[in-house]
Amino acid sequence: MLGVALLGAGRIGQVHAKSITANEGCRLIAVADVFEEAARTLAAAYGAEARSVEAILADPAVEAVLIATSTDTHSDLIEAATAAGKAVLCEKPVDLSLERALACLGRVEASARPVMVGFNRRFDPNFAALKAAFDAGEIGKGELLSITSFDPAPPPVSYIKVSGGLFRDMMIHDFDMACWIMGGAPATVSAVGSAIVDPEIGAAGDVDTAVVTLTWADGRIAVIRNSRRAAYGYDQRVELLGSEGLLAAQNVLENTVEKTTAAGKVSAKPEFFFLERYMRAYEIEWTAFVEALKAGAAMPVSLAEGVAALACAEAATRSAATGARVSITPDMLGAA
Amino acid sequence: MLGVALLGAGRIGQVHAKSITANEGCRLIAVADVFEEAARTLAAAYGAEARSVEAILADPAVEAVLIATSTDTHSDLIEAATAAGKAVLCEKPVDLSLERALACLGRVEASARPVMVGFNRRFDPNFAALKAAFDAGEIGKGELLSITSFDPAPPPVSYIKVSGGLFRDMMIHDFDMACWIMGGAPATVSAVGSAIVDPEIGAAGDVDTAVVTLTWADGRIAVIRNSRRAAYGYDQRVELLGSEGLLAAQNVLENTVEKTTAAGKVSAKPEFFFLERYMRAYEIEWTAFVEALKAGAAMPVSLAEGVAALACAEAATRSAATGARVSITPDMLGAA
Amino acid sequence: MLGVALLGAGRIGQVHAKSITANEGCRLIAVADVFEEAARTLAAAYGAEARSVEAILADPAVEAVLIATSTDTHSDLIEAATAAGKAVLCEKPVDLSLERALACLGRVEASARPVMVGFNRRFDPNFAALKAAFDAGEIGKGELLSITSFDPAPPPVSYIKVSGGLFRDMMIHDFDMACWIMGGAPATVSAVGSAIVDPEIGAAGDVDTAVVTLTWADGRIAVIRNSRRAAYGYDQRVELLGSEGLLAAQNVLENTVEKTTAAGKVSAKPEFFFLERYMRAYEIEWTAFVEALKAGAAMPVSLAEGVAALACAEAATRSAATGARVSITPDMLGAA
Amino acid sequence: MLGVALLGAGRIGQVHAKSITANEGCRLIAVADVFEEAARTLAAAYGAEARSVEAILADPAVEAVLIATSTDTHSDLIEAATAAGKAVLCEKPVDLSLERALACLGRVEASARPVMVGFNRRFDPNFAALKAAFDAGEIGKGELLSITSFDPAPPPVSYIKVSGGLFRDMMIHDFDMACWIMGGAPATVSAVGSAIVDPEIGAAGDVDTAVVTLTWADGRIAVIRNSRRAAYGYDQRVELLGSEGLLAAQNVLENTVEKTTAAGKVSAKPEFFFLERYMRAYEIEWTAFVEALKAGAAMPVSLAEGVAALACAEAATRSAATGARVSITPDMLGAA
Repeated sequence: MLGVALLGAGRIGQVHAKSITANEGCRLIAVADVFEEAARTLAAAYGAEARSVEAILADPAVEAVLIATSTDTHSDLIEAATAAGKAVLCEKPVDLSLERALACLGRVEASARPVMVGFNRRFDPNFAALKAAFDAGEIGKGELLSITSFDPAPPPVSYIKVSGGLFRDMMIHDFDMACWIMGGAPATVSAVGSAIVDPEIGAAGDVDTAVVTLTWADGRIAVIRNSRRAAYGYDQRVELLGSEGLLAAQNVLENTVEKTTAAGKVSAKPEFFFLERYMRAYEIEWTAFVEALKAGAAMPVSLAEGVAALACAEAATRSAATGARVSITPDMLGAA
Repeated sequence: MLGVALLGAGRIGQVHAKSITANEGCRLIAVADVFEEAARTLAAAYGAEARSVEAILADPAVEAVLIATSTDTHSDLIEAATAAGKAVLCEKPVDLSLERALACLGRVEASARPVMVGFNRRFDPNFAALKAAFDAGEIGKGELLSITSFDPAPPPVSYIKVSGGLFRDMMIHDFDMACWIMGGAPATVSAVGSAIVDPEIGAAGDVDTAVVTLTWADGRIAVIRNSRRAAYGYDQRVELLGSEGLLAAQNVLENTVEKTTAAGKVSAKPEFFFLERYMRAYEIEWTAFVEALKAGAAMPVSLAEGVAALACAEAATRSAATGARVSITPDMLGAA
Repeated sequence: MLGVALLGAGRIGQVHAKSITANEGCRLIAVADVFEEAARTLAAAYGAEARSVEAILADPAVEAVLIATSTDTHSDLIEAATAAGKAVLCEKPVDLSLERALACLGRVEASARPVMVGFNRRFDPNFAALKAAFDAGEIGKGELLSITSFDPAPPPVSYIKVSGGLFRDMMIHDFDMACWIMGGAPATVSAVGSAIVDPEIGAAGDVDTAVVTLTWADGRIAVIRNSRRAAYGYDQRVELLGSEGLLAAQNVLENTVEKTTAAGKVSAKPEFFFLERYMRAYEIEWTAFVEALKAGAAMPVSLAEGVAALACAEAATRSAATGARVSITPDMLGAA
Repeated sequence: MLGVALLGAGRIGQVHAKSITANEGCRLIAVADVFEEAARTLAAAYGAEARSVEAILADPAVEAVLIATSTDTHSDLIEAATAAGKAVLCEKPVDLSLERALACLGRVEASARPVMVGFNRRFDPNFAALKAAFDAGEIGKGELLSITSFDPAPPPVSYIKVSGGLFRDMMIHDFDMACWIMGGAPATVSAVGSAIVDPEIGAAGDVDTAVVTLTWADGRIAVIRNSRRAAYGYDQRVELLGSEGLLAAQNVLENTVEKTTAAGKVSAKPEFFFLERYMRAYEIEWTAFVEALKAGAAMPVSLAEGVAALACAEAATRSAATGARVSITPDMLGAA
């Protein structure tokens, strides 16, 4: 039994608590949260204890820590937990500051403890099937990747202001998907964005609609489309053109019912948002972390990969502002 | 907390054990099986006890019994459990003998205990969405219903021999679906069947491919297609033509990936078999039973409805043998 | 250049005039119609002459005759044209009376002139592709065929009264499709039908909704669904379950646009009716006739096949009335 | 009857000859081509004369001229034909040189003769239905447009060398689609491209895979994806995200047959290339030209719109080379 502690008892922490306790090889020992009441309630629901982070890190029974706290605490907690000898699964993004994330990466590499970043979409069965088919050579060499990622509705502007901006907060997932599918970080990033959904988002210095184009040195290209609003729900698709064909992962629909009348054929909407669409992915993500730990294998999503996604976000933010194509240089990826 | 006992620890019993224990309002007290070892193993996995049926029925803490034993024991156990004051959820079919099932219905009605028959497909979210849209009047009056139900592969001939035949064993689900969607038992049944998949099935006196047509007194028609073999897996579709349109519930696919090459566009197969396709339906079925019990509401699938499906199977068996259209008479439905 | 005359200048005659004149190897010489004005107008539009049937049959320049007159004249005209040495393409059905059609078949066989029956659906590119895939062995042995054929709206009751009934007038197409795909006439026919769309149709002694099940001696089964009304237009689908898979030909939609909003995803309706859906099939049908003639090959749809479809319709009419399964005996197919 | 002459008897000229002669209101008087034999053959097939361009422009019976010659002659012929008082439908692009096209635009405006540019995709029934739904307000305000346009295979490198490059030769269609759907030329253009399909294309100074992002002053964005190779044929899709939903025009498939086996469900490929996919669009395009002429209405695609698409291509070529976002200035659109 793997002894686990959960840091963060908010919405996503609750999702993770479920995955941790559903895994027969894990025991949830403790939960921490800045709001003690939240920690207590969640801990009680799963027969665990509410504790401080310090108490958790000091407990040798805790072998792994899942970090689901606010983004500004991720780097510090990763460092503290690895320093205490724990294995770590940390929610995305690693940090809003690429500089800070790079420093964290250096310290973690020194600690030699396993750290995984929680890019849940890699574990969605549909995207995983696309990746597997591609890696099996079913469409030859990958040439042009397209990722669509639209949220149902923008978050409150108060959240936007502390989010780090669309590229770091929302498109970070898509940067990781692109690097994962294409097998490494891109060479250049070109971005455009605008606040067309809600001018208040523009007034807060952010964009709500954006298109980013990535290139690799060998000529491969990826394009990412993001919008903070799709009236029909959560739109999550991937399409990869290869030398021998096209692979596409379409949306998961709410049901399979079709109604045909004089107005046409109506089928269901996509599943509404990430808690519906990716619930299964979160479970698989946790299982993948636990199995890699037990096998002593490489983490399914490394901290360096988390930093690479952040480097793309940093570059996109700059490109959107200046109109220039931005290169991803080795130092942005933590290369010595 | 509802005290529950499970009779039957085989494949489907194991599925139900999961649903019972996943329901926060239930406590699984005991498991019984003719193979004591099976009962012990399953009980242990969920912190319950292995007991005899007698001990279970004698325990006042057991308020509800889920019957997942072999079909030939269903009627006896329903009668014994209701006589002992328990609420019952019994797997389909009620019995292979319509006469025996009718006798059981009479006794249960005398006991006034709630009995539900486990027609899991009604609780599949796709079929439930179709039914809800129909009931909401979205396609007007229902006129022509079509149900497709193909298994991936036939069971062993040894099973076929004790199964009661395709109409009682397999199409029983579709008869219930037809009665449920159309709002009552049909007036006539016409059937054809043949053993084209496997001549051994024919030698055993059964068919493996069949088409049955049902009519209602007001002219509505339903047609059911069954095959014991679909090379691509489990094919489970419903289509209803109404005066204002068509409703269809399509198959649930294994994933949403599409690969387009010079050979065309390939998408995924349907989910393989009932354990994949209907796992969620079993959970919802159990929840529906528990909620109806707690509310003192009518059972979501009554024993009389279980008998009606069996009456259709009986009539289809006769029609396939004789070539004549067979009427469903009131006595076949247990009318006084 | 093949010299051609067209008998019948109504709606379907006009469609055929287009196909005849679009074929570079044909010359439309003359058009006949009981309404001379209709013949004159249509002839003028294509640079042909309006003539009487007698004048047409007496003209040695006319090598082939396309019969698109009212059904009650088909047998007489087929006999007269073949007696005059013409090749014939005749619209379906051969006749409303099986007896009369059988007599016609006898005389045509004696004349040894080529006669083709205009079952246009065989020439629809989608159904032809399904048939080609099946014949190429792509799904193994065919076991269970399903044909769906719904019209957008019923014809006037005045038409219903002289139509010969749904089985001869409408389902005749589907009987031919079934015989064509399965490779010969069935052994038995079981039918149910009702007038649920329009009670006036019932008052006229006909049905508007029907399901017919066909069986072959080796156990293969086909089921045909017909309705005189589909609120969404013309529904024309075929599905064939084989030992190694399923082939389906879906509807042709009006366009490929999909609109997704909070109400779901809306795609286009099927093409509205047979003139939209089968325009291309009529052209290909005519080309197939001309090419077979030129090559001296067997007619793509023989008169005997036209009679077989009618025998199925006859049997279905009887089965619907009596509730009994009806056998197709050799004499119903014109066997000596 | 509109007297028409066709300049250019190559592959696309032959397509247009068919549309001209299929239109009942038009008479094809003459055909010209630098290869006189080609002009003679095509003219003969439709009962027209082969003539020189000069003779055509001098003939007052010729009211309209369709220019389907090589691109380098377009501007000259447009100017000569309008100077001779003819109405003109000219194939795309107007020219490879924006400067030359702007000069042509100036002269045509002075002539006040109607000139239409042959952007055939606007007349595809699917794209037209999407545009109509958008203009009818069905998805609210348009925010993010995506156009996919992949050819089945690259043309010979010899063609690439004189083509003007992918942005002027191939993506010109997509630039027009974007301007048409969004209602005007964009403010900025950002492009990336690479020669990943065929290094010889790169050696010839061109790209074969490209992504271009367009922005409008009010924040709307469009993204265009082009590849010279899709192993499965011609991929032509449009997708528009609006404030209230998403409109998508999907590919037109070769047929509607689906085969489901243990390997999944296989459906047909898209129609292979532009002659298959857009044959109907060419007919509708010609009809639209003729009807606008007869009505004295504005041309459905103006010469200024042809110039705007070329301005986008010019900007994309520059952006791909420099990595900078390029503005579309008023002078690039011919503004005084």
